[in-house]
Amino acid sequence: MLGPGKAELLERIGETGSISAAGRQMEMSYKRAWMLVEEMNAAFAEPLVASVRGGSGGGGARLTEAGAEVLRLYREVVQVAEGAAAGPVAALERMLRAKG
Amino acid sequence: MLGPGKAELLERIGETGSISAAGRQMEMSYKRAWMLVEEMNAAFAEPLVASVRGGSGGGGARLTEAGAEVLRLYREVVQVAEGAAAGPVAALERMLRAKG
Repeated sequence: MLGPGKAELLERIGETGSISAAGRQMEMSYKRAWMLVEEMNAAFAEPLVASVRGGSGGGGARLTEAGAEVLRLYREVVQVAEGAAAGPVAALERMLRAKG
Repeated sequence: MLGPGKAELLERIGETGSISAAGRQMEMSYKRAWMLVEEMNAAFAEPLVASVRGGSGGGGARLTEAGAEVLRLYREVVQVAEGAAAGPVAALERMLRAKG
C-alpha cells in the first residue's frame, strides 16, 4: 500500500502544496506522480491528498488529515523497525567486505 | 546488500544444493541467479555460496558458514522489525479501504 517512494511523495506534497512540484523534486514525471496519488487515494478509505482550487498559484494539492496520519504512521513503522533491527543489521554490516 | 529476493535465493540454494534449481523455483533465469550470487559473494568478506564439485549429481552449490549466518541474521532483521512495527502497521491497515 505504501513504500518509501509514496511516503516521500506524500511528504513533499505536504511541503510544496503541489503534486507536480513534489514529483519534480523526485525526478518523477507529472503523470507518474498523479498515478501514485490516485493509487493511494483509491487504496485508503479516505483520500490522502486533496486538490486545492483557486488562489494566487492557480490551485494545488494538500495532505488531508488522513494523509498526514498515514505519513506519521509510516514514519513510525520505519523508525521502530530500524531501532528494533539495529543489532542484527550491524552484525550483517560487519560481515560485509571492507570498502576501499 | 541483501533484500527479500537475494535472501530467498540463498535459502533455496541451501535447500536444493543448486543455484540453477534455486533460480528456477523463483522463475529466474540461470544467468540472473548466478549474477545475484556473484554480487553477494563480492559484497561480503567471505563468500556466501560455494561450488561443490563432483558427486553423483555432477556438482552443485552450498551455503558456506558465512552464508548460513547471513541468512539467519536477515531472518532476524525481518522478524524483529515486523514485531516491533506491528502496532503502527495495524493502524495503517485499519485506514485502508475495506476490500470486496
